[in-house]
Amino acid sequence: MINSIQETPGVCSFIPLLYIGWADDVLSPSEVKIIREKIKEMPWLSSKEKKIINDWSNPKNPPSEELIEHWVALIKESAKGLTEINKNFLVDLGMRMAAAGSESSNVPWSTDAAKLALEEIENSLGFLDHNNFKDILSEEQITSLKLAQKKIASFDIEALTNLLDGPHRKAKNRTRQLLADPEFQLQYYADKEEYRNQTLKWTKLLAAQGAGSIFYPKEYGGEDDIEKYAAVFEILGHHDLSLAIKFGVQFGLFGGSVCWLGTKKQHDPFLNKIATGELLGCFAMTETGHGSNVRDIETTATFDPETKEFIIQTPNDQAKKEYIGNAIHGEMASVFAQLITNEQSYGVHAFLVTLRDKQGELMPGIRVEDCGYKLGLNGVDNGRIWFDQVRVPMANLLNKFGDVDQEGNYSSPIESEGRRFFTMLGTLVGGRVCVPLAGLSAAKNGLAVAIKYAARRRQFGAEGEQEKLLLDYPSHQRRLIPRLAKAYAVNFALHHLVLRFSNKTEEDSREIETLAAALKSYATWFTSDTLQECREACGGKGYLSENQFGTWKADTEVFTTFEGDNTVLFQLVAKGLLTEYKEEFNDGGVWGIVKFLTRQVVDSFSEITISDNIKESHLLSDEFQLDAFKFRERQILMSIARRLRKLISRKITPYQAVLRCQNQMLSLANAFAEKVVFEQMAKVTNDPQNLDLKPILKQLKNLYALHTIESDLSWFLESEYIAPIKSKAIRKLVDKLCLELKDHAVDLVEAFNIPSPCLNAQIIQ
Amino acid sequence: MINSIQETPGVCSFIPLLYIGWADDVLSPSEVKIIREKIKEMPWLSSKEKKIINDWSNPKNPPSEELIEHWVALIKESAKGLTEINKNFLVDLGMRMAAAGSESSNVPWSTDAAKLALEEIENSLGFLDHNNFKDILSEEQITSLKLAQKKIASFDIEALTNLLDGPHRKAKNRTRQLLADPEFQLQYYADKEEYRNQTLKWTKLLAAQGAGSIFYPKEYGGEDDIEKYAAVFEILGHHDLSLAIKFGVQFGLFGGSVCWLGTKKQHDPFLNKIATGELLGCFAMTETGHGSNVRDIETTATFDPETKEFIIQTPNDQAKKEYIGNAIHGEMASVFAQLITNEQSYGVHAFLVTLRDKQGELMPGIRVEDCGYKLGLNGVDNGRIWFDQVRVPMANLLNKFGDVDQEGNYSSPIESEGRRFFTMLGTLVGGRVCVPLAGLSAAKNGLAVAIKYAARRRQFGAEGEQEKLLLDYPSHQRRLIPRLAKAYAVNFALHHLVLRFSNKTEEDSREIETLAAALKSYATWFTSDTLQECREACGGKGYLSENQFGTWKADTEVFTTFEGDNTVLFQLVAKGLLTEYKEEFNDGGVWGIVKFLTRQVVDSFSEITISDNIKESHLLSDEFQLDAFKFRERQILMSIARRLRKLISRKITPYQAVLRCQNQMLSLANAFAEKVVFEQMAKVTNDPQNLDLKPILKQLKNLYALHTIESDLSWFLESEYIAPIKSKAIRKLVDKLCLELKDHAVDLVEAFNIPSPCLNAQIIQ
Repeated sequence: MINSIQETPGVCSFIPLLYIGWADDVLSPSEVKIIREKIKEMPWLSSKEKKIINDWSNPKNPPSEELIEHWVALIKESAKGLTEINKNFLVDLGMRMAAAGSESSNVPWSTDAAKLALEEIENSLGFLDHNNFKDILSEEQITSLKLAQKKIASFDIEALTNLLDGPHRKAKNRTRQLLADPEFQLQYYADKEEYRNQTLKWTKLLAAQGAGSIFYPKEYGGEDDIEKYAAVFEILGHHDLSLAIKFGVQFGLFGGSVCWLGTKKQHDPFLNKIATGELLGCFAMTETGHGSNVRDIETTATFDPETKEFIIQTPNDQAKKEYIGNAIHGEMASVFAQLITNEQSYGVHAFLVTLRDKQGELMPGIRVEDCGYKLGLNGVDNGRIWFDQVRVPMANLLNKFGDVDQEGNYSSPIESEGRRFFTMLGTLVGGRVCVPLAGLSAAKNGLAVAIKYAARRRQFGAEGEQEKLLLDYPSHQRRLIPRLAKAYAVNFALHHLVLRFSNKTEEDSREIETLAAALKSYATWFTSDTLQECREACGGKGYLSENQFGTWKADTEVFTTFEGDNTVLFQLVAKGLLTEYKEEFNDGGVWGIVKFLTRQVVDSFSEITISDNIKESHLLSDEFQLDAFKFRERQILMSIARRLRKLISRKITPYQAVLRCQNQMLSLANAFAEKVVFEQMAKVTNDPQNLDLKPILKQLKNLYALHTIESDLSWFLESEYIAPIKSKAIRKLVDKLCLELKDHAVDLVEAFNIPSPCLNAQIIQ
Repeated sequence: MINSIQETPGVCSFIPLLYIGWADDVLSPSEVKIIREKIKEMPWLSSKEKKIINDWSNPKNPPSEELIEHWVALIKESAKGLTEINKNFLVDLGMRMAAAGSESSNVPWSTDAAKLALEEIENSLGFLDHNNFKDILSEEQITSLKLAQKKIASFDIEALTNLLDGPHRKAKNRTRQLLADPEFQLQYYADKEEYRNQTLKWTKLLAAQGAGSIFYPKEYGGEDDIEKYAAVFEILGHHDLSLAIKFGVQFGLFGGSVCWLGTKKQHDPFLNKIATGELLGCFAMTETGHGSNVRDIETTATFDPETKEFIIQTPNDQAKKEYIGNAIHGEMASVFAQLITNEQSYGVHAFLVTLRDKQGELMPGIRVEDCGYKLGLNGVDNGRIWFDQVRVPMANLLNKFGDVDQEGNYSSPIESEGRRFFTMLGTLVGGRVCVPLAGLSAAKNGLAVAIKYAARRRQFGAEGEQEKLLLDYPSHQRRLIPRLAKAYAVNFALHHLVLRFSNKTEEDSREIETLAAALKSYATWFTSDTLQECREACGGKGYLSENQFGTWKADTEVFTTFEGDNTVLFQLVAKGLLTEYKEEFNDGGVWGIVKFLTRQVVDSFSEITISDNIKESHLLSDEFQLDAFKFRERQILMSIARRLRKLISRKITPYQAVLRCQNQMLSLANAFAEKVVFEQMAKVTNDPQNLDLKPILKQLKNLYALHTIESDLSWFLESEYIAPIKSKAIRKLVDKLCLELKDHAVDLVEAFNIPSPCLNAQIIQ
């Protein structure tokens, strides 16, 4: 029974707070504590009123459903007239209800003091979830509430999402919608066979939606749009990563090899069937003995002029194809092998080899073995493949960059074997562009869960006070907030990479390969590191499969290895940068040397003069930040160049000399990657089109820049670019930025716009 | 048919090399290349001889079994007289055979040049496996070979194993033997139920061997030996970590709670049954809402004077017991709850609650839910437990530190509730001592696999030369060798902790808790980091379950969380250190302040004078290294103390003040941990008993110290303890130490003496 006599103004003022307090079915002990403590200090409440409020906040005796329904009715009535909704709108509602009550009851009622005290309670209840207002506010009011919360966030979440999404927002939103379909519901699979079947089913569903052929030529039903393909792949990274990888193997690697290494000869019969998923295939490049070093793979494809066939052969056990995705489901494979004709080898080429007949039986001479369980990605069917005198028709040579005529004469549009090899591999850089995008999405998932959890989980606190939110601990901010900022910076840098890749010309293709190698490594290491930190930040809850970290961590773990081992790629980057430097230097002759020396002097002087500048305006300026990143890259490059010259002058072979500089070369590649990421973050921040978002973007840019510099302070201090006093100032500023950004952290992960069915982690439901 | 005419001296000299080359069934292409290249430069071989050797090293046509048997016979004959076995003993054998051949054949034979050339081949074949010599050498000769290899390693592997094992070598070796039993054969389980059953079976097998009761009192069949228990647990860490954890839950946590929190009242009926595994039980402390903050758990145990029972109650859903190991198999649980009697709460106490009857049916009022799949440790049955008005007899209160009489009057030997709480928890520090030991063993597994793989895997290389061993790349050395050194240092530090823990008194128990918290965090983070790096260093192979990294990584992942979240523990450490400091300071009065200021001055001066000393002898000295570690700890401590005093003088509450210093406090705890680890490593290195091992220990100590200092160079540079020139010198020296130690790396992981059935990774078989 509801006793309306209880509803004095003082009691009414509490109803909205109590309703929301009970909304998730439990008033936590610390919430109870706050309410009860505060009540004591409210002289305007009678002891009877206090008792009623105490009764209604008794966890051992929660309010009845009947009572709550009555509250809802009361609140709804009062909410009707509410037009402006601000941060403390629950208190506003309570005050309206109290006012209405006081009109009819004549009980004395202290307005200002009550409002202030109630706001204190509301603020200490922490973050509020929109969903809890569904019963009491109209749709319009909820929209207005969201707008008000955006105002608190001091930025427009949707606008930020659009900026993160970039030009292919439409394709991304379509993919988000698709993944929200019940057919794509995520599940935990312990058994790999079950999981593989589901992944295959999903892959075909995506193909049925036309997702498989996006970058294929229009004449084969595609859209000739690699950027759009990358956009779709990025969103797949939020969902099941086995699906993303299987999708990538089938349409990106297998289809891509046919598309880019083949000609009409192979496009006509195969490309359509690949796009629909009718023809499943593998990308059989890696061998057990040769992973990173593709050039020295040992599988051979020997031309037999008698039968006009190539004979594919695995010469020894180390030359078996290894880790091949789709190996169990695939009907065909692009097999990379040394092309031999007229007893001469012409280097690595790709050949289409039929693995299985239409009944799924292996063809003669082919042996396939399951790689078994893996650390993650168990929805992908990886296997090993051996070829024993397997004959394929000569038309199955993917012959864009090299062909053999009926007599076995070899021809190629690219004369140098080295250049031919790199051109062929270069066409496949797409994988390196896409993998980090999917990895970034997984990292965003992790950040979203860890940050939302930190904004509601409480543990420890000052004696007698409510326990503290994890997100309010400086150490917890340090774990999550700089990585959140980095996710933004990496997002913009990867989109820059996609754009450059899709518009690449012959002239800048080497430069873009360097860029792809640098960002692939940098971003995938970021993913591993972030998911690790987020898991730890969620404690034991992070360890349960129901909270998804296990899957994300394990699945993305291999991203640092495949599509180019990160360490090997970083060395490629350094070599690329050194080559550019060498060209610059050699071309310049004497003038080059003068330039070199001048730059040296300028570098050192300009820096020393500001090495102890600790003004905040300086530390937060693009000028200082960019200069720091550029200075570091340049200095490491110069240092390696000098060391190499010295070693070579001592008659050490160039190979040995480069080897000795290996660790410095890894630092160079990292410095380059961080400079590029910063440049892109700064570019987006300063773009006049993003003026409304500039305040929040600037904070993210500043945190990315200063935290990144902080992580390598030993280098900056050692090179005396930064003086100890400045180093300390940077550390403090990073702490400060973390503190400032933590209030926006939940909104910043909201802006990722992760399809909600992808985030079914129990701890944030 | 074997043609003995082929066996000229020149051919004979090659036979041992060829035999070993073929021993693992395949002569790798690069091995073939070396042999064929070298042969060209051997004028003493006739073209006929060269052809024979070329034929015998043709991977497409391996020597017949008949031929190999013939070789074995020849080599055996020749080996008979071989007494001294050195590094190039295969060449020695070949030379003996050639000499024997030349006596009978009269073919001219160039001894010295041949020996040199053959040695070059042998050296470039890389590391050799003892097992390949079983067929050709006598047991005595193999022993002598091992001895010779020890000489090459410049240390005695077995002696180093003994040092690593410490005083409980016998128990460790017994456990190693046990785990090598076929019953303990490792397997990959996808299905958790199957895995849990196996883990339970193993747990009972260990109990049957008496391993369960090692630290229980002798009157209950135990040995009262916590050190021995830790030793056994350490070795279990090499095997299946689900088993180690289940073992720890049953005998360490559940049994430990009965043993240490209980009295004869509970010992008599239960301890024996726990030790044999007849009574399986849980340690039900953590709740969903309270993990780190145990003091505020919400489960209640209310005394009912009428029935003389306690009523155990889960007051709300957040108070359910969470992640409880053994929850599915357990018959009983030690439940931690707030003891309430006469309407007053006396804080957290433990109660034995029967969960299931003998048929395994849940008792009334008890609800258990499976936690489901986890990121790892899926062999452990973790669950959630709710209690609804569950009544237990009053004798089930583990009553060593608090008891209730028939009338419900509470009494305790410890008056202060705070001290009582910490005393109870303090008895359970054993878990914190043991967990990092098991983690260290898992890290050793990872290092063993990654290093052995790096010592045989080749990839890339100079044009025209054999591909290079991964271990010969400076970047690869940087990944593995410093972590190898750290494993040694952490090993000695953890054994020091075990010793102190087992000998603790009331006086030093706080200090030992600080030590345990510091080393638990430091060592378990080391485990996660090392396994991650080792996985990446093995590339795609590291990702396959058959190579075990997945399991090790996933299983030890939660070690950073359970038995105290590492971040929370590090804060405890810092608080402990600050308390010590405060006592020192307060006790001293004016004298304390003088001491404080003096130390300040001394600190700053003594350091500056050596901040640019870059002599190798200085950098490698214990004095410099220890001073660096001590200086850092002291300085951070002082800096926090000053900051706290300043904040508090500004009327900020002590709670808030400490919160603001949180990040610095984490640095302090880390600095403390690293100082302790270094001290223990240095102590073992300088122990006169280890004189024979001193050279290798010194290198490990130097690498641990300098690499650790290098990792925090930004701090040392910022505080001007180290000048830039010295910082550079340290980096270079770390590179150099890595290079020097890499030749001993395989022997250093051999010294871990990991039971070989635990390392069934395919890549090192």
